[in-house]
Amino acid sequence: MSGNTFGRIFRITTWGESHGRAVGVVVDGCPAGLALSKEDIQKELDRRKPGQSRASTARKEEDSVEILSGLFQDRTTGTPISMLVWNRDADSSAYDKIQDTPRPGHADYTYQMKYGIRDHRGGGRASARETVGRVAAGAVARKLLAQSGIRIAAYVTELGGIKAKLPSLDLMSLASQAESNAVRCPDQAAAVRMLERLDAIRREGDSLGGMVEIVAEGVPAGLGEPVFDKLDADLAKALMSIGAVKAVEIGAGIQCASLRGSEMNDPLIWQDGKVAFESNRSGGILGGISTGEPIVCRIAVKPTPSIARRQRTVDMAAGGAAEIEITGRHDPAIPPRIVPVAEAMVALVLADHMLRQRGAMV
Amino acid sequence: MSGNTFGRIFRITTWGESHGRAVGVVVDGCPAGLALSKEDIQKELDRRKPGQSRASTARKEEDSVEILSGLFQDRTTGTPISMLVWNRDADSSAYDKIQDTPRPGHADYTYQMKYGIRDHRGGGRASARETVGRVAAGAVARKLLAQSGIRIAAYVTELGGIKAKLPSLDLMSLASQAESNAVRCPDQAAAVRMLERLDAIRREGDSLGGMVEIVAEGVPAGLGEPVFDKLDADLAKALMSIGAVKAVEIGAGIQCASLRGSEMNDPLIWQDGKVAFESNRSGGILGGISTGEPIVCRIAVKPTPSIARRQRTVDMAAGGAAEIEITGRHDPAIPPRIVPVAEAMVALVLADHMLRQRGAMV
Amino acid sequence: MSGNTFGRIFRITTWGESHGRAVGVVVDGCPAGLALSKEDIQKELDRRKPGQSRASTARKEEDSVEILSGLFQDRTTGTPISMLVWNRDADSSAYDKIQDTPRPGHADYTYQMKYGIRDHRGGGRASARETVGRVAAGAVARKLLAQSGIRIAAYVTELGGIKAKLPSLDLMSLASQAESNAVRCPDQAAAVRMLERLDAIRREGDSLGGMVEIVAEGVPAGLGEPVFDKLDADLAKALMSIGAVKAVEIGAGIQCASLRGSEMNDPLIWQDGKVAFESNRSGGILGGISTGEPIVCRIAVKPTPSIARRQRTVDMAAGGAAEIEITGRHDPAIPPRIVPVAEAMVALVLADHMLRQRGAMV
Amino acid sequence: MSGNTFGRIFRITTWGESHGRAVGVVVDGCPAGLALSKEDIQKELDRRKPGQSRASTARKEEDSVEILSGLFQDRTTGTPISMLVWNRDADSSAYDKIQDTPRPGHADYTYQMKYGIRDHRGGGRASARETVGRVAAGAVARKLLAQSGIRIAAYVTELGGIKAKLPSLDLMSLASQAESNAVRCPDQAAAVRMLERLDAIRREGDSLGGMVEIVAEGVPAGLGEPVFDKLDADLAKALMSIGAVKAVEIGAGIQCASLRGSEMNDPLIWQDGKVAFESNRSGGILGGISTGEPIVCRIAVKPTPSIARRQRTVDMAAGGAAEIEITGRHDPAIPPRIVPVAEAMVALVLADHMLRQRGAMV
Repeated sequence: MSGNTFGRIFRITTWGESHGRAVGVVVDGCPAGLALSKEDIQKELDRRKPGQSRASTARKEEDSVEILSGLFQDRTTGTPISMLVWNRDADSSAYDKIQDTPRPGHADYTYQMKYGIRDHRGGGRASARETVGRVAAGAVARKLLAQSGIRIAAYVTELGGIKAKLPSLDLMSLASQAESNAVRCPDQAAAVRMLERLDAIRREGDSLGGMVEIVAEGVPAGLGEPVFDKLDADLAKALMSIGAVKAVEIGAGIQCASLRGSEMNDPLIWQDGKVAFESNRSGGILGGISTGEPIVCRIAVKPTPSIARRQRTVDMAAGGAAEIEITGRHDPAIPPRIVPVAEAMVALVLADHMLRQRGAMV
Repeated sequence: MSGNTFGRIFRITTWGESHGRAVGVVVDGCPAGLALSKEDIQKELDRRKPGQSRASTARKEEDSVEILSGLFQDRTTGTPISMLVWNRDADSSAYDKIQDTPRPGHADYTYQMKYGIRDHRGGGRASARETVGRVAAGAVARKLLAQSGIRIAAYVTELGGIKAKLPSLDLMSLASQAESNAVRCPDQAAAVRMLERLDAIRREGDSLGGMVEIVAEGVPAGLGEPVFDKLDADLAKALMSIGAVKAVEIGAGIQCASLRGSEMNDPLIWQDGKVAFESNRSGGILGGISTGEPIVCRIAVKPTPSIARRQRTVDMAAGGAAEIEITGRHDPAIPPRIVPVAEAMVALVLADHMLRQRGAMV
Repeated sequence: MSGNTFGRIFRITTWGESHGRAVGVVVDGCPAGLALSKEDIQKELDRRKPGQSRASTARKEEDSVEILSGLFQDRTTGTPISMLVWNRDADSSAYDKIQDTPRPGHADYTYQMKYGIRDHRGGGRASARETVGRVAAGAVARKLLAQSGIRIAAYVTELGGIKAKLPSLDLMSLASQAESNAVRCPDQAAAVRMLERLDAIRREGDSLGGMVEIVAEGVPAGLGEPVFDKLDADLAKALMSIGAVKAVEIGAGIQCASLRGSEMNDPLIWQDGKVAFESNRSGGILGGISTGEPIVCRIAVKPTPSIARRQRTVDMAAGGAAEIEITGRHDPAIPPRIVPVAEAMVALVLADHMLRQRGAMV
Repeated sequence: MSGNTFGRIFRITTWGESHGRAVGVVVDGCPAGLALSKEDIQKELDRRKPGQSRASTARKEEDSVEILSGLFQDRTTGTPISMLVWNRDADSSAYDKIQDTPRPGHADYTYQMKYGIRDHRGGGRASARETVGRVAAGAVARKLLAQSGIRIAAYVTELGGIKAKLPSLDLMSLASQAESNAVRCPDQAAAVRMLERLDAIRREGDSLGGMVEIVAEGVPAGLGEPVFDKLDADLAKALMSIGAVKAVEIGAGIQCASLRGSEMNDPLIWQDGKVAFESNRSGGILGGISTGEPIVCRIAVKPTPSIARRQRTVDMAAGGAAEIEITGRHDPAIPPRIVPVAEAMVALVLADHMLRQRGAMV
């Protein structure tokens, strides 16, 4: 049973391979009547495009979205929204050469073991290009969430061991600071050092990992479903499903292991005639349900596996050890480019749970 | 749309509240013909029982499982396996008093916001008692996995800031070392210090967090579904859905953020006529699909929110600030007790993906 | 992938075998705040009990429901509602004897082929006793629907070739007429003849089939999901999933094959300031979505397969032809007893689609 | 929660509106390694094309399928197969005029009530053009089934009251007879009369209904899931989800209501060293599980609702009664064109259950 569908009520199915004809997504379950334009989608796709900076590859992708169904007079109709982006003709010859020598850190070997066959060109289905569908669908989810005053932003907080110091800003200013540099880090000084580090590592033919924080503001209390579809559980799945993510934290995250209960518990306070929390170490989620405070997630992103160094691998056709040298241009770090993808995944989870919540009470 | 069901093919639905009549689970999708006895289930339930040590509360729970369907002559028949454990009569008066003053760090406030009504007695559905169903179902999954040579074990690697040093042992010996002490830590020296720390924190009326590692051995290459139901994505969801878990790591986990690609990539090697990996920083998963190496997950567990200290909260009935003092005995740390629950969740994910894999090839 | 769960948002999972410990159901996704008592459930279970008349067997079943979770102070809490009915100790010896000789018209042979093992006692999972869970869950759905003014009733319209003439009555009066006799036929004169026919057929050691009509009133326009989860498609599945049902009709049903378009189309009319339909040959559904007119379904129910005659079968253990004589008391006709089950299934579909509709518009 | 996805393991999602950019389908869960070409799909799409005979409209549709993903070197790879057919530019002006006056027998009114907005052009999502996706996906399912020796065929058995007499032929010959005439009826004499009747009714500006029988041969015993996802239940849903279908029968179908148990029960016989059935009134399904005999379904198809007569309706914009005259060419009968669609739906159900059965035993 395949897993190309995500969400229960707001539900997306992505399809497409890196060097196939196109990549795309079908969004099912978006409520009717939502104002939506091609620009809403394209804007987010443009943010995920490579080729914009030193942090990303020089490849150029057009990625102009086509919306094939589900809209009428610039509004959603409740029927499936099918979107696609054509792939440009790609030269697969570099991939043909390494067809039998799985790239370390990639999914080449595991796809082969799973299916007995694989489209090896450009990484096939396991390519980062698959995220086009996620980002396009996420743009629809964001539009829906915006109607309820929910905003989502992500930014790089660590790269190659350089940690950012987050300025005291509201979320949207933080995001705008992050978007202003090529590593998407809201701490401009740290961003400069990160870029220098990236230049150095590229020259060494190596790559770097990092951390990304994703925050959602304006989420009302009450979203999330006991006991398996907890909001944090669904966020963890959504974020871990992005290639290269190796850890997901909510709120205090891993740090909670060394806190005491009296430090970890967020006191409830009475503010302006309603309930609030004095702190937000829970990351906006208690018992799997949103508290009304900002939802805070962090992901650890592994260094780009495609590095310009000779690596040891095996020859699956001939049997025996082999070496591989990966050519072509590859991002020396994934975190800056993962930002819009992570935002999209959080948006999809929240849109889904917002609709699920409609069934909570008589 | 509620979320009390987990899994796609091997599928469980849990039900029950802490002070209700019973808690239970229905396991659907277990293949027919599996030898299964009450003892297989009871053994795992006994491991999750509280009251065994300084690390856990003095409450006594019987937790004797009843299997109501799905078995015939000690074999599964392919029909749903319904299991329940009766709750003993509980005194809910302590909970009645704090009905309108949500306990910090608990789900009281969020359930109330979600449903407008809640069974506040003993934490209701949000109680750790809900994990009885998970562990019972997990025992069935383990039995199924054992047939394919898959073994799962978990243990505490950190408690209250004390980090264990894992002895160089095979997984089952590690597990057996862990089960021999009350904190379930395979490093006996660290275990002693953890227990001392627990004694101290209990006297202070406070609680501690920690880390738990879960390992699955014998998992064949090829399990996991692109692109949303990646094996690591489903593991992340499964583990994050356990109360008190605030972070999930796979393999190198959060540490990958500061590694280079040349350090992170696990070289493929040719060993005994087949493919293996020289290291396992991927945690046994590449592109969301198992590599054949051990699956390695870690979770960060927050300190017990029920602490014996006066805490600030609100009075939701009257409006305004309030204080709360939680009485009764509560574990000063959750990690030792979460061990069998985490194992169960990993077993459920693997059993499900093992069955899903049956549809992968013609 | 097993199929013991029904519904998407209002979702039930039934479990249990005829001669096992108990049969039961878990209802997940019922909104919080619904007033619900044991009596609401028991009332419907009592209607499905056998032993009440000449139309049904003389066996006595207690079928006293226990509600184990999901209620607090007589209201639903949004958490799963687990219900069970204990089985009384049953003598399985009659079934042991025919273990290897599949009963014609029953599921003995097919379960064996599917699973390689089966609980043959009392028909196991394929027993009509499984419908206890459906009816109990359906009672919850009915309570939810009643809040929105939706009423459901079913009655026998044909038995053993005797066709009822439906009196011109409102739905609830029709239902009350039907409940007043043992064949649940609202045409009292026909009911008398049906009962005579049943007496005759029982003496002959044979059985009869019939037709049942199910009507739902008060269903608002707009329920049903294009394109696969059409309201009529989900009703067809729900009703066909009841044992012994061999055909499902909606509105004009099979008769539409011989109508002209000008006869079949229901004209829309303007009535009391809103839209209505002059006729209801569509059965209240157009394009898979409710029109606001009564939903009308009919099912064809095959004659009871357990007949008191020697029948030809095979011996699966020894190989070769065999004969079988089924002992014990069995209903000579299923339609009267299927009435509450069919109502329950329609209620489950409507409750689910009522909740699904909450996600239709922004 | 929308319903544009069908199937559990072999799973399709269709999208697209009649006058939108394109219509299409994503097939997820098709096992890897299946030989599949564009021709396999196109062949079935060509069978559903209108414009071929007196039984269908004169419109011309190209319907050339594009396969955008999921294939590599003419084999499936286990990843989603995305297929689309472009819509030609259509003149929607005729539909604009009747935008506020719902066509009787169509989904205009119910879509409007459900979503508050609709793409009225050409019937939008409710158009028969949506079946392009079903037929394309069904072609993949058929290819998969063919590998296991499963063949599916459908044909018209009744049209406008004229009943066919089925010649004693094997299924494939029957199908070939049916394909040889424009009404897809295997009884050539009846076909001639049906065509005459169609000519007459077209001249009268009216339309006709009919019956279609679908048979699947070579289905092994054991497919179908108790208790809700019975094979007949899933077939009933699949077939009823096709527009214009108002009844579904399995085996003896509605006729079973007037049979006795001794007539209805199919005796099991021992034939060539294995179990068979002497008759097949069950339609190849007992207890929701296939028996190994041919699966036999029948559907009642209502007369085309678009008729060339003035009909009464309402004006939803202005309020009040109105009249409508539908222009354009429309099939005077749907059964001949529904044949490939019904086959596709049966193929999808069988492919799904064939894969589900892989999880039945340890």
